[in-house]
Amino acid sequence: MNPVNVILLSPADNVAVANGRIEQGTELPGGGTAADAIESGHKVAIKSIAAGEAVVKYGQAIGRATQDIAAGHHVHSHNLAFEAGTRLPAVPPSEAEHATKADQGRTFMGYRRADGRAGTRNFVGIIASVNCSATVCHAIADEANKRLLPNYPNIDGFVPIVHGQGCGMSATGDGMMVLHRTLAGYARHPNFGGMLMVGLGCEVNQLTLYGQKGVAAGKRHFNIQDAGGSRKSVEKAMGVLAEIAEEVGAYTREPIPLSEIVVGLQCGGSDGMSGITANPALGAAVDILAEVGGIGILSETTEIYGAEHLLAYRAASPEIAEKLDGHIKWWEAHVAKHGASIDNNPSPGNKRGGLTTILEKSLGAVAKGGKSPLNGVFGYAEKVSGHGLVFMDTPGYDPVSATGQVAGGANVIVFTTGRGSCFGSHPTPSIKVATNSTMYHAMEEDMDVNCGVIASGEKSIGEMGREIFELIVETASGRKTKSELFGYGDNEFVPWHLGATL
Amino acid sequence: MNPVNVILLSPADNVAVANGRIEQGTELPGGGTAADAIESGHKVAIKSIAAGEAVVKYGQAIGRATQDIAAGHHVHSHNLAFEAGTRLPAVPPSEAEHATKADQGRTFMGYRRADGRAGTRNFVGIIASVNCSATVCHAIADEANKRLLPNYPNIDGFVPIVHGQGCGMSATGDGMMVLHRTLAGYARHPNFGGMLMVGLGCEVNQLTLYGQKGVAAGKRHFNIQDAGGSRKSVEKAMGVLAEIAEEVGAYTREPIPLSEIVVGLQCGGSDGMSGITANPALGAAVDILAEVGGIGILSETTEIYGAEHLLAYRAASPEIAEKLDGHIKWWEAHVAKHGASIDNNPSPGNKRGGLTTILEKSLGAVAKGGKSPLNGVFGYAEKVSGHGLVFMDTPGYDPVSATGQVAGGANVIVFTTGRGSCFGSHPTPSIKVATNSTMYHAMEEDMDVNCGVIASGEKSIGEMGREIFELIVETASGRKTKSELFGYGDNEFVPWHLGATL
Ligand SMILES: [Ca+2]
Ligand SMILES: [Ca+2]
Ligand SMILES: [Ca+2]
Ligand SMILES: [Ca+2]
Ligand SMILES: [Ca+2]
Repeated sequence: MNPVNVILLSPADNVAVANGRIEQGTELPGGGTAADAIESGHKVAIKSIAAGEAVVKYGQAIGRATQDIAAGHHVHSHNLAFEAGTRLPAVPPSEAEHATKADQGRTFMGYRRADGRAGTRNFVGIIASVNCSATVCHAIADEANKRLLPNYPNIDGFVPIVHGQGCGMSATGDGMMVLHRTLAGYARHPNFGGMLMVGLGCEVNQLTLYGQKGVAAGKRHFNIQDAGGSRKSVEKAMGVLAEIAEEVGAYTREPIPLSEIVVGLQCGGSDGMSGITANPALGAAVDILAEVGGIGILSETTEIYGAEHLLAYRAASPEIAEKLDGHIKWWEAHVAKHGASIDNNPSPGNKRGGLTTILEKSLGAVAKGGKSPLNGVFGYAEKVSGHGLVFMDTPGYDPVSATGQVAGGANVIVFTTGRGSCFGSHPTPSIKVATNSTMYHAMEEDMDVNCGVIASGEKSIGEMGREIFELIVETASGRKTKSELFGYGDNEFVPWHLGATL
Repeated sequence: MNPVNVILLSPADNVAVANGRIEQGTELPGGGTAADAIESGHKVAIKSIAAGEAVVKYGQAIGRATQDIAAGHHVHSHNLAFEAGTRLPAVPPSEAEHATKADQGRTFMGYRRADGRAGTRNFVGIIASVNCSATVCHAIADEANKRLLPNYPNIDGFVPIVHGQGCGMSATGDGMMVLHRTLAGYARHPNFGGMLMVGLGCEVNQLTLYGQKGVAAGKRHFNIQDAGGSRKSVEKAMGVLAEIAEEVGAYTREPIPLSEIVVGLQCGGSDGMSGITANPALGAAVDILAEVGGIGILSETTEIYGAEHLLAYRAASPEIAEKLDGHIKWWEAHVAKHGASIDNNPSPGNKRGGLTTILEKSLGAVAKGGKSPLNGVFGYAEKVSGHGLVFMDTPGYDPVSATGQVAGGANVIVFTTGRGSCFGSHPTPSIKVATNSTMYHAMEEDMDVNCGVIASGEKSIGEMGREIFELIVETASGRKTKSELFGYGDNEFVPWHLGATL
């Protein structure tokens, strides 16, 4: 099949994106033809745009025309500009992908937990309070998988949740607050049927900070120093886990409404196609999920930076918009304090690739969130609630961002990648979506979905959105992702590190 | 055996420390008797000390008498003070533990590497550039240990060196500089006979930053994205490792002078006995090691804070003292920037335990370094050189501190602990030294040495120093530590995290 010449990202757009270099005279959507040759990834006007009028891509204004642009002409820095701080013309919300009537009554096969939440996996977590108990947690998980797992076909596994933090830190600062919230979020995660938390004993992050309140049934705690050392800790854990396994092994999958699916949206190893194929397709899936009452968590604050006001336009209330703005301001101060910067302007490479303004660049990341209203804003690792699209403040770095989303309750992750990231996590399965067919075929054992078929014209963004949505439902019901089949997840718990290591 | 009544930490001292509560009339070293009842851990004058004269403990002035103190009396806040910033009277250096004539010609059985350095183990490292390749590095190590290791009896194992960093960070800041130095230090570590470095491909911390120059033979690099994904990376690695194993398997132990032993000094989970038993005993071992030309690396800047000028008095040159002072000033600015503080004053608990001044508290940590001159100061993960006692700037947090020392070339670690830390690392063996017999007996499977016998009077500090020294030599020659026997080391590589996660 020949690739399509141009991709129209939203019906409201007045520009389309060249999919490979197109020659003068190439037919465009809406009936016109290209007046210029247009390089791959660059924009072409599909309607005439008057000077001062908004240039619309992703159904959003990405800047204003600085001169009259006739249909068929190249749109880039010579005729499009955006001045930070100026207010862009509002664009009426464009059509989202819709759930069908049949979708409304649908269920997935999940695990109903004591706290009412729904799990998509039935793991037992072995959680370390501090790096000093990490090796013992691994040894406990290994031993339990050998000794206990064979007797409990309904348990997906005993998984170590270990990390580099937990001591040598201020007991009262941001760093400790974020670590505590993250570990507490994992401890009560619905994909854990039960868990055991193991400390050393003398660390800053004491196990006594993790009460039973609101935490999944079967939670247990102990310190290596109280158990008499490493080997005795493994033996002690086997006794506790034998009881926990009885509880966890009794869970079976049951029909649960799709509204209880909570999807963490990730992108990593982006390429020029991320914002054109995989991200909008994932956005279409999120629009369907939002209509059936599920939650999609958009994150990666450093990657949406510069387009946050366009996201704020979609906020369901002024409070939500203000909360988002508060996180942006926090980041500006945070990176300044560290002498770093959020790389927010299109780089020379981005410009050569056809990205004209910072809005356009960040909207490629925001596209994962689809077109529905923004219904909530949460801090890192905070428990998410509500339905539809929400935002969680996280860094863009994949394992740290995903860890925050999982702590917040994500029971499925969908991760788009152009270069080929192989991320997988415990206890939440991660669906990998390729932005292009070349990488998909080169790394097929790691990729679950190929959105390169959008560029080849085989599938539309909407069709791929539906496919991703169906794969989310199947994955939630137990279908294993490629990263689960390989065995990812023991090394990707990376809580956000804030504050000084002492 | 009955415990000794008081412990004299250095022959130059004019105070001794009560080992358990002693009653009035108890005999003291030097022939006097206790004029007061003295609580455990508190100080008693063993000579009369005039007002204004230095109170000497660890052979160092810890403050001045604020009134005349007669021999036999309790020395604490009521008659001892130190005002920060004031210059203390110089105390003549006290007698160190000595190497014997026979020690001078001794060797250990180690591995001589191509760059001339000496290894104490013969591992193959599988090093991740970024968290995104951590799981593949683990899978490679597991597969190599299964498929290759049985054919190479001289190889100690294939070990994954993985971490949470490598991307989502500024390419030019302190954070990246420190990570690069740390990974480069592991890549050329003499305990690795060979290594393979695996990246994802699109990370900030590119493998191309790690050249062949000065790096151990057998070094190889590749990216998962170039290899076609996770499983294919494991297969590719098996091919590379088959070649590396041929090289590494050919190394055998040979006699190497003791001067090539480089010991990282650690303490974690300290208790009231740390500064009285295990740390001075380790210091005695370091004094012997220094006399035979080996290196002892003292670190944990946050834990020696407040006593740094006493360490500076021992500096072999003014430049060394200035370099130490530079690190202290950096820390003061660093913690202030993060709204944290170095907890430098004796806490109410410390005071109840008998610690009067900040100097005294920090000198308990410095005691690990013994009494020889300070011959060098190094930045975190910098390659150490020279001989005798050197200092490396690290946080106090054990895994982060030890990671810096190993990157700097430590081929043995000695770790003192009162509460019972179980630390172990790859590729450097870690000897665990208990400060008290109760913990030693409770956690005997994790502890290599019991310094509680100093408090019981069974052994002197000097005798235990000799025992630790001999165990360092045996461990360097291949004797396995308790943490190696349990399997520590896959989770304790924790490079210092500096800068903002983006
Ligand atoms: Ca991204
Ligand atoms: Ca990302
Ligand atoms: Ca592991
Ligand atoms: Ca310590
Ligand atoms: Ca320490």
